[in-house]
Amino acid sequence: MAPNIEAADATQAAMAHVQNSHIRAMTSDVLFHIGLQCSTDERQHVVDTFGDVKFFVTGGSAERMTLFAHAIAKELGIATPYGYALTPIGSTSRYTLYKVGPVLVANHGIGMPSISILLHEVTKLLDYAKASNAIYIRMGTSGGIGVEPGTVVITSEGVNNKMESVDEVAVLGSTVRRPAICSPEVRDEIIAAAEQVGLPYAVGKTLSCNDFYEGQGRLDGAICEYTLEDKMEFLQKCADAGVRNIEMEARGMASFCHKLNIPVAVVCVTLLNRLNGDQVLSSHETLQGFEKRPAAVLLHYIKSKLNVSP
Amino acid sequence: MAPNIEAADATQAAMAHVQNSHIRAMTSDVLFHIGLQCSTDERQHVVDTFGDVKFFVTGGSAERMTLFAHAIAKELGIATPYGYALTPIGSTSRYTLYKVGPVLVANHGIGMPSISILLHEVTKLLDYAKASNAIYIRMGTSGGIGVEPGTVVITSEGVNNKMESVDEVAVLGSTVRRPAICSPEVRDEIIAAAEQVGLPYAVGKTLSCNDFYEGQGRLDGAICEYTLEDKMEFLQKCADAGVRNIEMEARGMASFCHKLNIPVAVVCVTLLNRLNGDQVLSSHETLQGFEKRPAAVLLHYIKSKLNVSP
Repeated sequence: MAPNIEAADATQAAMAHVQNSHIRAMTSDVLFHIGLQCSTDERQHVVDTFGDVKFFVTGGSAERMTLFAHAIAKELGIATPYGYALTPIGSTSRYTLYKVGPVLVANHGIGMPSISILLHEVTKLLDYAKASNAIYIRMGTSGGIGVEPGTVVITSEGVNNKMESVDEVAVLGSTVRRPAICSPEVRDEIIAAAEQVGLPYAVGKTLSCNDFYEGQGRLDGAICEYTLEDKMEFLQKCADAGVRNIEMEARGMASFCHKLNIPVAVVCVTLLNRLNGDQVLSSHETLQGFEKRPAAVLLHYIKSKLNVSP
Repeated sequence: MAPNIEAADATQAAMAHVQNSHIRAMTSDVLFHIGLQCSTDERQHVVDTFGDVKFFVTGGSAERMTLFAHAIAKELGIATPYGYALTPIGSTSRYTLYKVGPVLVANHGIGMPSISILLHEVTKLLDYAKASNAIYIRMGTSGGIGVEPGTVVITSEGVNNKMESVDEVAVLGSTVRRPAICSPEVRDEIIAAAEQVGLPYAVGKTLSCNDFYEGQGRLDGAICEYTLEDKMEFLQKCADAGVRNIEMEARGMASFCHKLNIPVAVVCVTLLNRLNGDQVLSSHETLQGFEKRPAAVLLHYIKSKLNVSP
């Protein structure tokens, strides 16, 4: 057993972000939901495969992230070997992951619990792979507050329904509060990219909710026990606090990354202005056009960071 | 506009479960995430298509629920029209839904926020369709507490990390507490089915968490700030309170259904005994066998409810 323990000790010493002293007692780590396994015996293989990752880009739907993975390959000029096709890595039963050159791409499903699992497992993977400088970016859709549909909102911090920039995490029987702040330096670089691409954008707080209906003040859920006036008062309170959009993941992601000193940004397009209504009524084509906007900004951003000419 | 308003008034009067007086002002309802639309003009079509639904069965992964949809068709003897194949309805970008005779089948993704959206939209759909007696069942996987891997746990109530049978829902700027209790009559019928099928089962409380690592007391996450002793103390506290398994959805689903007077059950197989460890180490084949157990119980249950001979 001695060699394995030594190898495991070396592993823990090399963990750049993971904050877990128990990891060093493990000689094999099954990343259950993404369907990958990291053992000390095969550590070099993990380094060879994932060590060059510089960006981890994640968004809700697998379809959208598959399109993004193909766009990354095209824009970065990463040639597909003849007779091969880009294909998901690991298991696709919960998440769909792609490795495209220096960019890891995955869908995170809906909500903070779903993205939380992905963040834990990808962060362990990238630490095992010694890809310690990877920037994490969520690319999503959202409801806007006081901005036109189609606006790209770049998040300063995730807030809860009390307008606090705090994520409450249940840890065993307790509740821990962690700051939910995005990295100012990444944000500024993405703002520059949005300006260069020429898409409408806004910078502000993002309200992250645990549901789509009651938490977001919609009047069209299966349960609604408040009035239009209550709803508008809440949305106005959000607007006054500097909230520019509402979605379901930013706060959890910002808090996880802030805790582990991982550079993080959240870039979401707005599909509607919630001050005007609840239902997403734009045509399929219009929505598809909107959904391409965060991708366009991030493709430009990633290319400029990698010094690939636009 | 008068005919539409009259139609909408009739709609509201006919809503059996939905508790939302605003719905009656809507002549069209876009069920955005499942990709279906219900308008008053086409209400009869919704009734014709979904009015016969008696069961709504939902589980985490789309792959598993696709297998279940095919199994339902086979077991209920629902013939596939020549030249056709069973195919998902609505949009598959977030959820994958099947309509197989009287059974609506869907994956709910991971976590209470993700299942919440599905529950709101399916409940509106079934109310519009006048399928008011549908039984909702979650079919899932979980970590066991003091039971052997492979045990089918039938949930009595969902609890939080304080061992309260309560779901806290953020509504606008407030927090509402709702009881998270499964229906005793459905539970008893499913217990009878488990006995008839002859699979190992247990009945007890289910701890529903918002993450897979810290909330469930695992030592193998990217963040872990407690000791093995802290973890074991928490898990023992759960066991002492009557918790038999841990997962990420039961509490939210039980609370939603209890609130809307919808009969509900949660049936999850355990993949490991958390009192013995954190990692899911059983072989792929063993896990696949375990995953079939809740399906076997529910197929038997649905057949006996529909008086289909086993």
